[in-house]
Amino acid sequence: MIVSDNQILLPTGSVFTEAEVKQFRNETTGTKNVIHLNNAGAGLMPDVVTQAQLDHIKLESEIGGYEASALRSAVIKAFYEQAALLFNCKPANIAFTASATDSYTRALSSVPFKAGDVILTDCDDFVSNQIQFLSLQKRLGVKIIHINNAAIGGVDLNDLKDKLYKHLPKLLAITHIPTNSGLVQPVNEIANIYEEYLNIYPDKTWYILDACQSAGQMKLDVQKLKCDFLSVTCRKFLRGPRGTGALYISDKALHTGLEPLFIDMRGAEWTTKDTYKQQPDAKRYEDWEFAYSTVIGTKAAIEYCRTIGEEKIWQQVKLLSGIIREKLAAIDRISVLDKGPEQGGLVTFNVKDSGPVHIVNELLKRKINVVASYRAFGIIDFDEKGVEWAVRASPHYYNTLDEIDAFIESVKEIIR
Amino acid sequence: MIVSDNQILLPTGSVFTEAEVKQFRNETTGTKNVIHLNNAGAGLMPDVVTQAQLDHIKLESEIGGYEASALRSAVIKAFYEQAALLFNCKPANIAFTASATDSYTRALSSVPFKAGDVILTDCDDFVSNQIQFLSLQKRLGVKIIHINNAAIGGVDLNDLKDKLYKHLPKLLAITHIPTNSGLVQPVNEIANIYEEYLNIYPDKTWYILDACQSAGQMKLDVQKLKCDFLSVTCRKFLRGPRGTGALYISDKALHTGLEPLFIDMRGAEWTTKDTYKQQPDAKRYEDWEFAYSTVIGTKAAIEYCRTIGEEKIWQQVKLLSGIIREKLAAIDRISVLDKGPEQGGLVTFNVKDSGPVHIVNELLKRKINVVASYRAFGIIDFDEKGVEWAVRASPHYYNTLDEIDAFIESVKEIIR
Repeated sequence: MIVSDNQILLPTGSVFTEAEVKQFRNETTGTKNVIHLNNAGAGLMPDVVTQAQLDHIKLESEIGGYEASALRSAVIKAFYEQAALLFNCKPANIAFTASATDSYTRALSSVPFKAGDVILTDCDDFVSNQIQFLSLQKRLGVKIIHINNAAIGGVDLNDLKDKLYKHLPKLLAITHIPTNSGLVQPVNEIANIYEEYLNIYPDKTWYILDACQSAGQMKLDVQKLKCDFLSVTCRKFLRGPRGTGALYISDKALHTGLEPLFIDMRGAEWTTKDTYKQQPDAKRYEDWEFAYSTVIGTKAAIEYCRTIGEEKIWQQVKLLSGIIREKLAAIDRISVLDKGPEQGGLVTFNVKDSGPVHIVNELLKRKINVVASYRAFGIIDFDEKGVEWAVRASPHYYNTLDEIDAFIESVKEIIR
Repeated sequence: MIVSDNQILLPTGSVFTEAEVKQFRNETTGTKNVIHLNNAGAGLMPDVVTQAQLDHIKLESEIGGYEASALRSAVIKAFYEQAALLFNCKPANIAFTASATDSYTRALSSVPFKAGDVILTDCDDFVSNQIQFLSLQKRLGVKIIHINNAAIGGVDLNDLKDKLYKHLPKLLAITHIPTNSGLVQPVNEIANIYEEYLNIYPDKTWYILDACQSAGQMKLDVQKLKCDFLSVTCRKFLRGPRGTGALYISDKALHTGLEPLFIDMRGAEWTTKDTYKQQPDAKRYEDWEFAYSTVIGTKAAIEYCRTIGEEKIWQQVKLLSGIIREKLAAIDRISVLDKGPEQGGLVTFNVKDSGPVHIVNELLKRKINVVASYRAFGIIDFDEKGVEWAVRASPHYYNTLDEIDAFIESVKEIIR
């Protein structure tokens, strides 16, 4: 089922030339073995990312773990510089973490919630965030309020505005692209509403944007997004190692003195028996210990992404996923489930009278990687759509039209 | 300065034969390059641990990150089985984490503190734990009470008893071996006191034991230790990858329904918009995402440790560190700082009219790995000892007497 790279087919309107896509594929071992449409799970790593990790682990084994990270301190520092360039901020605003969830909980834990405080969130927010809000509700008595969806999908901007001014929430929590649909939230419009609101209520509300699925798909500029926290993972569309994430923390949040509840010896200095002093920068949000091979791999991944260009990547991902949606929708019994004013690289569909495990496993046999999403991953969204599951296919800029066609033909064959 | 492995010297009383130590060293690439006395920082990985990581990262690059972990699910499951054998519990009591601190904060976050609740802790508790207690004090109004030290070092068991019954703390928090001294807390005696106390107050107090520096040095049996939580790192004396840890959670804690404050979609299932259901086992304490290469590397490390035998390792580490202490103490201007009824593999010393950076860097030039500890790493302990810093040398069972002698001679030369 693997498509030969001697002759690749690209769709009309492709942002990248055939030579460019061939190069991306040459630089990515995995494309020789699998048709990878699971970039929303974990992207295929470029070989430079793989090699960066292997080299560092070998170095650790040769001279010792701490000694290796000391020797590679310049490359480790470059992670912060690369992440800062990616999000248009300073390196001092960046913390390295183990995942988007790890980023998210560190940020969440730094908001000093009191009983009765409101968390205002959207109906397509990531499942783990929602579970954590419920945990905070149980433990601290916060209130969770959901912004209504617009008819087209995504947050109803008028309802957002109303609820923001009505509830003066302690936290506004938006997931940019949910894990279980093609929806892209209108974050620019949300930024405008939040900025306007800040003119009247500058100190009431922190804004966290979960960009787990958007980082690496498109340009994320925190100056335009206006968020106080941006949480990302690096294993998905950024094509970094597993077990990696980053957290942007705004100067405002740092200057106000927010700090994670479980701040550690990297984030603060123990000064007397009864006192500690927090770090001035985003290191405050980090733990002492990392798997440094993953930090170094992530640095290579961000660099690779930035070289190709986030805007081009975004256009190509939208093109490829649009084609997949179109082709799937033309197949009998298949419903494409994605909604929203704009749609990104996560294509989700349900097949009448079928089950996701069978489809995913049969595709895997044909060396095509996709995953299943279940109701528990997005209760509100799935219930609204009236389905129990979806198959999710998530292409990236290194995928080709041949691969998409092979996927479509396989799906037809499997559900026949 | 590197000692040839053709002829190694072992001390009188060595638990391991020359052939055995030669084999350990043959199986550890790093011993050919460095004299590694920084096992309390990160141990040199055995080659099987290195290779396990490299193989998995390559597999990820070949077929995809999620696809690789699915394919290696049996090995990943074996991590839990190995950790359970290491601590004498069930795999269902084990959570994988990113570090001892990560383990610790997950456990700490699951204790439902209210204002006025007491945390009873020792004076040699790990710095990050102490900072987190102070953070909880600031945020939630908990009270921190320290158990006095005995004259010999380590907790005064009578004072522990008194304060336990007097304050009925919400949490008893002990660090088994601090990061900055050779002290080994009398955990068996503490277990007896806690067990007796539980007969009268079965539901007042949770007991967390930070075994970050003891795991891999000695046998840790949670049935005997009587702790509700045991937090460990795997990169130190267990010789696993960096960025790895484990958390043991007792059946009692699981059955009572304790759960981490920031429980995620691995730890709980989102069931309705307003409810979630926690996992019955220790998975409740895990996040969804891991760097699986590190899980698989840790599995290999624990297996390796268990094959050699924790009791033998402990005897050898005590022997080697005892010799280092003796030889250091005989040097003019050097004070060995370690106290306690029993002393383990962390040797700490101060040199009059010298500084730690110079000593550590000069040793590094001679390919001898040690680290510096500072007052901020253990305020109470350092102030009591009246020093601002210590150099820490931490041998393991693969070190030889030749290496120790080379270290001692180098120290003499450097501080001359």
